Amino acid sequence: MKSFTTLLAAVAALLPYSLADAVPWERLNKNDSLFVILDLQVGLYSLARDFDATLYYNNIIAHAAIGQLFDIPVVLTTSAETGANGPLPKAILEMYPDAPLIQRQGEVNAWDNPAFREAVRASGKKQIIMAGIVTDVCTTFCALSLRAEGYSVWANVEASGTTTEFIRDVSNDRMANAGVQLVSLFSIICDLMRDWRHTPGTPTVLPWLAKYYPVYGVLAEAHGGAVLNGTISEGEAVLLPY
Amino acid sequence: MKSFTTLLAAVAALLPYSLADAVPWERLNKNDSLFVILDLQVGLYSLARDFDATLYYNNIIAHAAIGQLFDIPVVLTTSAETGANGPLPKAILEMYPDAPLIQRQGEVNAWDNPAFREAVRASGKKQIIMAGIVTDVCTTFCALSLRAEGYSVWANVEASGTTTEFIRDVSNDRMANAGVQLVSLFSIICDLMRDWRHTPGTPTVLPWLAKYYPVYGVLAEAHGGAVLNGTISEGEAVLLPY
Amino acid sequence: MKSFTTLLAAVAALLPYSLADAVPWERLNKNDSLFVILDLQVGLYSLARDFDATLYYNNIIAHAAIGQLFDIPVVLTTSAETGANGPLPKAILEMYPDAPLIQRQGEVNAWDNPAFREAVRASGKKQIIMAGIVTDVCTTFCALSLRAEGYSVWANVEASGTTTEFIRDVSNDRMANAGVQLVSLFSIICDLMRDWRHTPGTPTVLPWLAKYYPVYGVLAEAHGGAVLNGTISEGEAVLLPY
Amino acid sequence: MKSFTTLLAAVAALLPYSLADAVPWERLNKNDSLFVILDLQVGLYSLARDFDATLYYNNIIAHAAIGQLFDIPVVLTTSAETGANGPLPKAILEMYPDAPLIQRQGEVNAWDNPAFREAVRASGKKQIIMAGIVTDVCTTFCALSLRAEGYSVWANVEASGTTTEFIRDVSNDRMANAGVQLVSLFSIICDLMRDWRHTPGTPTVLPWLAKYYPVYGVLAEAHGGAVLNGTISEGEAVLLPY
Amino acid sequence: MKSFTTLLAAVAALLPYSLADAVPWERLNKNDSLFVILDLQVGLYSLARDFDATLYYNNIIAHAAIGQLFDIPVVLTTSAETGANGPLPKAILEMYPDAPLIQRQGEVNAWDNPAFREAVRASGKKQIIMAGIVTDVCTTFCALSLRAEGYSVWANVEASGTTTEFIRDVSNDRMANAGVQLVSLFSIICDLMRDWRHTPGTPTVLPWLAKYYPVYGVLAEAHGGAVLNGTISEGEAVLLPY
Amino acid sequence: MKSFTTLLAAVAALLPYSLADAVPWERLNKNDSLFVILDLQVGLYSLARDFDATLYYNNIIAHAAIGQLFDIPVVLTTSAETGANGPLPKAILEMYPDAPLIQRQGEVNAWDNPAFREAVRASGKKQIIMAGIVTDVCTTFCALSLRAEGYSVWANVEASGTTTEFIRDVSNDRMANAGVQLVSLFSIICDLMRDWRHTPGTPTVLPWLAKYYPVYGVLAEAHGGAVLNGTISEGEAVLLPY
Amino acid sequence: MKSFTTLLAAVAALLPYSLADAVPWERLNKNDSLFVILDLQVGLYSLARDFDATLYYNNIIAHAAIGQLFDIPVVLTTSAETGANGPLPKAILEMYPDAPLIQRQGEVNAWDNPAFREAVRASGKKQIIMAGIVTDVCTTFCALSLRAEGYSVWANVEASGTTTEFIRDVSNDRMANAGVQLVSLFSIICDLMRDWRHTPGTPTVLPWLAKYYPVYGVLAEAHGGAVLNGTISEGEAVLLPY
Amino acid sequence: MKSFTTLLAAVAALLPYSLADAVPWERLNKNDSLFVILDLQVGLYSLARDFDATLYYNNIIAHAAIGQLFDIPVVLTTSAETGANGPLPKAILEMYPDAPLIQRQGEVNAWDNPAFREAVRASGKKQIIMAGIVTDVCTTFCALSLRAEGYSVWANVEASGTTTEFIRDVSNDRMANAGVQLVSLFSIICDLMRDWRHTPGTPTVLPWLAKYYPVYGVLAEAHGGAVLNGTISEGEAVLLPY
Repeated sequence: MKSFTTLLAAVAALLPYSLADAVPWERLNKNDSLFVILDLQVGLYSLARDFDATLYYNNIIAHAAIGQLFDIPVVLTTSAETGANGPLPKAILEMYPDAPLIQRQGEVNAWDNPAFREAVRASGKKQIIMAGIVTDVCTTFCALSLRAEGYSVWANVEASGTTTEFIRDVSNDRMANAGVQLVSLFSIICDLMRDWRHTPGTPTVLPWLAKYYPVYGVLAEAHGGAVLNGTISEGEAVLLPY
Repeated sequence: MKSFTTLLAAVAALLPYSLADAVPWERLNKNDSLFVILDLQVGLYSLARDFDATLYYNNIIAHAAIGQLFDIPVVLTTSAETGANGPLPKAILEMYPDAPLIQRQGEVNAWDNPAFREAVRASGKKQIIMAGIVTDVCTTFCALSLRAEGYSVWANVEASGTTTEFIRDVSNDRMANAGVQLVSLFSIICDLMRDWRHTPGTPTVLPWLAKYYPVYGVLAEAHGGAVLNGTISEGEAVLLPY
Repeated sequence: MKSFTTLLAAVAALLPYSLADAVPWERLNKNDSLFVILDLQVGLYSLARDFDATLYYNNIIAHAAIGQLFDIPVVLTTSAETGANGPLPKAILEMYPDAPLIQRQGEVNAWDNPAFREAVRASGKKQIIMAGIVTDVCTTFCALSLRAEGYSVWANVEASGTTTEFIRDVSNDRMANAGVQLVSLFSIICDLMRDWRHTPGTPTVLPWLAKYYPVYGVLAEAHGGAVLNGTISEGEAVLLPY
Repeated sequence: MKSFTTLLAAVAALLPYSLADAVPWERLNKNDSLFVILDLQVGLYSLARDFDATLYYNNIIAHAAIGQLFDIPVVLTTSAETGANGPLPKAILEMYPDAPLIQRQGEVNAWDNPAFREAVRASGKKQIIMAGIVTDVCTTFCALSLRAEGYSVWANVEASGTTTEFIRDVSNDRMANAGVQLVSLFSIICDLMRDWRHTPGTPTVLPWLAKYYPVYGVLAEAHGGAVLNGTISEGEAVLLPY
Repeated sequence: MKSFTTLLAAVAALLPYSLADAVPWERLNKNDSLFVILDLQVGLYSLARDFDATLYYNNIIAHAAIGQLFDIPVVLTTSAETGANGPLPKAILEMYPDAPLIQRQGEVNAWDNPAFREAVRASGKKQIIMAGIVTDVCTTFCALSLRAEGYSVWANVEASGTTTEFIRDVSNDRMANAGVQLVSLFSIICDLMRDWRHTPGTPTVLPWLAKYYPVYGVLAEAHGGAVLNGTISEGEAVLLPY
Repeated sequence: MKSFTTLLAAVAALLPYSLADAVPWERLNKNDSLFVILDLQVGLYSLARDFDATLYYNNIIAHAAIGQLFDIPVVLTTSAETGANGPLPKAILEMYPDAPLIQRQGEVNAWDNPAFREAVRASGKKQIIMAGIVTDVCTTFCALSLRAEGYSVWANVEASGTTTEFIRDVSNDRMANAGVQLVSLFSIICDLMRDWRHTPGTPTVLPWLAKYYPVYGVLAEAHGGAVLNGTISEGEAVLLPY
Repeated sequence: MKSFTTLLAAVAALLPYSLADAVPWERLNKNDSLFVILDLQVGLYSLARDFDATLYYNNIIAHAAIGQLFDIPVVLTTSAETGANGPLPKAILEMYPDAPLIQRQGEVNAWDNPAFREAVRASGKKQIIMAGIVTDVCTTFCALSLRAEGYSVWANVEASGTTTEFIRDVSNDRMANAGVQLVSLFSIICDLMRDWRHTPGTPTVLPWLAKYYPVYGVLAEAHGGAVLNGTISEGEAVLLPY
Repeated sequence: MKSFTTLLAAVAALLPYSLADAVPWERLNKNDSLFVILDLQVGLYSLARDFDATLYYNNIIAHAAIGQLFDIPVVLTTSAETGANGPLPKAILEMYPDAPLIQRQGEVNAWDNPAFREAVRASGKKQIIMAGIVTDVCTTFCALSLRAEGYSVWANVEASGTTTEFIRDVSNDRMANAGVQLVSLFSIICDLMRDWRHTPGTPTVLPWLAKYYPVYGVLAEAHGGAVLNGTISEGEAVLLPY
């Protein structure tokens, strides 16, 4: 008979990591991940009122563009798109002319659709990076189903939208309680990138930042200008540690 | 002696699902669920100040109407209704002339009332969808009691009300920590519906959406108008992926 | 020497617009007023994000219903309604099957449309009660034009909508600076009603309050219940001044 | 050897309730509870800026008054009260002339003070209802210490105060994560009361509600007036279910 | 040629109302002022949701108590008080057993009621300090009428209440545009007091501050404690300019 | 006796500045207007914190693009651009390679710079549409100077930025008090466009809306899709007035 | 016949105060201005809750430091400083050891104190830059009195504080309506400086910005660092207009 | 064979403390802790928009100063500091001229850098007190890595910054779920200090409070002044419990 120590270690091993640290900390890996564009449809867009409308549109396009930037596989899906929900934005469709586009006729939860399940499984990826409209239904239902299937799920909280900030927060918490990782656009970019140094075969993220994350893009533009043409004033000199 | 593998599996099985995923993800099933209309009384309504007053009234009627829409059993209960708390709104009473109405003389926690317990048990349902006034007392006390009894509890966060947003948030978190599912009106509708396609024997949700969830109802109205009478401008044509 | 009248007219002419424009306090009079339903179209509704979507829909229907309640003439107008802006909500069209509906083909400012100008003038009313989508364009442009024509303009601030609260506030201030009266739903109702006592030939506002302004309607429902069936506790007795 | 079933049951029994339901749901019992008035000092009051200043003062006095209402033992403690922190408010001191008042010379965490520990232990109570200034230090440190000692801790979130709402929320979450029950004034009152019916030997809560929780007190006052002197209008009659 | 007086009067007549209406800066004078308690009724209280409910109740009682403190005449008025609006709070009625109480049967605008007009005129005062429920109707209508009659009107913005902060702000601006002075509780107290030094025949405001404005009352309590029993630490000594 | 003209001029001279300054309602006219791009520099961008950073960047580019869309002359100016303030964004410089770019060496108020004054005057336009960073300094100082010179000034409130929302609001009010028109992006577009119908020689605004104002652009995209490929459900049919 | 001068004076006299009071746009001139440090006392500081406490302390010290920076005369005044209001902060007293410090024994309105009036008048300045605690009393009362005396008044809205943001906004509007200029810290600095170029005899503002306005100070520090040690990446190069 | 009691105790012992109480409550100990200054760089500072800019700068300097106050070891690290991110502020560099400064060339996650790992390990400390820019990337990634390594991590929530409050909250929750302690500046100070009494060899925190936490520093200054020079009024006397 094995020792009790062994027994106890085995019990401990069974305990999900989330007990020690809630959800096992895990890094996004561009080779293990899949983007799911979930019901980010032009009709449903009018229900996403927890963000400024202009900002939110930027966010969903920016979300979609990360897949393209890192050459990560993408699955597109829509719900009843000839009805009021409408198709995906042209801007997203043009990014992924060859990606699977699962047009669900009626299933609210994408995971209920066999073709969608098949598309996700066929990717062979275990880290699902996703966003949908609306957060409390499309994103939450699918994310919880994926968790139940054992996937590691990364919900981009800036690219899912719903009717109110209150419903957004309640729904995000519901997902977090089920082990979904709630992450920002910048967090996804940085986790996939890992290192600011440009290594061959990896993309530079600066154009993406300039286009979709100007708080950094403009900082970089200002820095570049300062290096090239900057002059330093007497006053600034006082501020420097050099 | 059974193998350790068996032992460990058994231990794992004992571990509540909530360890892997907080609360076991579960879907609402219209055949397993019961609506509880809990102290949504016309006097107590004046204490519900965490939502706009007009919006909140819409939400409680909308909550009650979901039971009717899906033909789900309903239990009504009130607290000291001949006093300041007042009766339920006429609009709700008229929806459910035949539902059990438990008029508690004094018990704050509905579960403390034998007739209420009996009514819930008699329904034979295990998924309790509920909302009450005020969130920190009526909803929380009853929800926690139901959880302790092993029920799956779904708190409609848009239909419970209390004095401040701060107390609402603290109380909702307290329920979530006890395994209560915090859900929106739209989430309940969609989870019960499962599929947008109209199958015989199931109701269409569009009239409910038009009446209580106009962010979708008006979208559908606009879409219908566009299909029937819309004309497309040169500018719009440029935007289309077709 | 020119007459004093001429002198005074000349002084008045020198006074900048905003002075002439500043309105004396004035009461709404149901015989002098006209409701303008301005571009409250089902497509444009998706741009009105400065209110909760459910609440805002209630507000525009409530606004339209005041005209019906007091039998005040109404002018309906839409902008490019076969395009993305869409028609007026069915609920409003059904209230006013016989009111003039001016379908502008392109003019942004309703006052630029001859048929609209004619409809307003034909009413013979001088107090224009209005709301539109979006506040910064449709409502503001038309309200300022009406002010320039000498009309007394009452903007229902709860029934105009726009993209953000910031734009709403800036636009409302711009109108107020031009002498537009910024008023609430309840203020319009009470100003038209004048007296809570029901006099023959005037409508009772309670059903309107019950439907569109439940903060009062539910109060009245609770009060009625208390009078009919209420019992008074020892504790309550202590609180009473009687 | 006991059966595996027994073993597994025993393991399950060991699992803290908080696994099934986070923190074991528990009711306040007026015979098991102790109020701790923790550093609610007149100098420290100026640091409590997460509530309106008038409201917050009401809340701390209301908190203290609950002990008096239900005749629950109270322990008072202060930190360096001859310094800037100042003494407790006169209003609280006058409520409890005979309660132990532990004047800590320097310990930030009240639990570090032997006299305070002794006072709590001497009460023999296991449910500690508490509030302090500031939330992130006085309340949190003491609450976490009490949890570590096995006490059931009930933090009155309306009666602890700190510098910002942000720090309040972060600190409340920190306590909730450690199993502290976050509760409102009304929740404490209702949990201790259990039943609205006045039974001999228990206090009536109405005067407390009238004084400290006017959202209910005024409702009761209005109800009492309606029962005694109210008249019902034709309009109200339409709204009634009777 | 007409006299210059005539000319100037004619010029003045040409000036739009809002110009004539704009008030010169003026101080409250306890001998020239009148408090109007306008529809602060226990039923209507449930409509006042632009302040925390507890805070708002404090504010209306505090408002009423200023008249008592400075022995300023008070006129009380209610609207349809046997109906849902209810009577004034017992706390206010007990303060002013001998003040005129004008129970309007139906007039929304108090100024439309002859007895109210007479009561105001009979006071012989020209500075009307007032607050009512709701701000957009009761307060605004009466305030604008008083302005039209040439009164100097002081609206206590902390003691009028309405359904939303948005309506509050719009209504306050409407009053300010008509020359109503928008003032706080503390501003009224300080303007009536003029000088912190206690002169014979004038009341000390400290008990009022302690009861209704604890942000100052507690400061004073802390200061008194420091003077009597405070000890100064080495650290504090460093901070002092002495 | 002096002429009446002299009298009236003298009366006008007596009128305080803010009266002369108050602007009559006026429409933007694309032939009378000039865009001023004022200090929207990449370094100063880091001070604009009253909007979401991504949204604000969109807004300044959108502001600049309106000039291009309507072929309206533009004057660019910067403050100390080789220092920390930095140059204008590349995106704006590329839009207007031939516009005058006044690089002020030190003047905070652009109007203090002779070259800037000359550029504005040389345009011959009287309606100045402008935005700058920061609102309380660059925009306000220049706008007030332009008002003093008799220009009609249109401040795009969505494209000026500053450190806090509080400072933004105070500064915008200060400009409004001096007769500056505070307008939104959409208001500028619609006022310049006047009519949705596409007339030869005028641009279509839809691509601008699609890029910078997606709340409308996506609505149009959804509408186009509905007209081309939409199908209407039974539920939607019920909602239609046709 | 009376002279035209008399006529015009008579017309001017008829103009209500607020018209005469409305201020022409005016620039701060360091030779014409006086700083008033009004009741920014360490006790009263606890009433200033409309800003974060840390931020507000920075703001009052920053306000005081501007006088020192530009060598502008300063008048200090306090209200009942041996009582609860307390003395001025040591940090301010040390800045101005030689400035007049008027210790009012009781007058709430500083202008009621003869020594204060004399100190202001003795300065010979006409532009009064001021801030006080609390905004609705100390700042407003004194500012309105100064306006009535014909001074140009500049209220630093970031350095006056009061109990709530609501009272702040109402009080600021009241001052603006009386012609008080509402300005920010940065606006005062920039208006006094006029030009970023360092001319002999004028101070450099950079150290002040670094200490009190780090949103600019850190930008300057970053710029200086970039010029000295910056390297430009390939990605940044793409962003540059050079 | 050991008894089952032993077995069960051992299983219980294996259960992480966080099951009983989420994260084991632990106190900061100045001898066990290490400060990590993580990417608080002058360029990145422009991305920290979830706090007022002035306040946030105060917070990062205050954070750094705690290490100095308690003589706790510090590790400094930067990311690509010759690029747009910039160096650390001069104010921090001057505090720690001798601390290790790890200049990462590219690694986003500091823990990926061998020199950083070595510096942390070499300290021999197990409690890591940290803050970084931006919260969702720099702070979260490093904190989660440290947790995975078994460190006790204390995130100073007031000294990490990111683009929006929403991202801040989501990221803080993500860290809390992984067992990171979220603490305030004052909480860190008080936990390290333990006792307000000044014992030889420990620093007095008052100068730190005066400089970085004026809500307490000014309270102490006011108290000191009251003790030395305060006089007590008749009114205050009434408020005192003595």
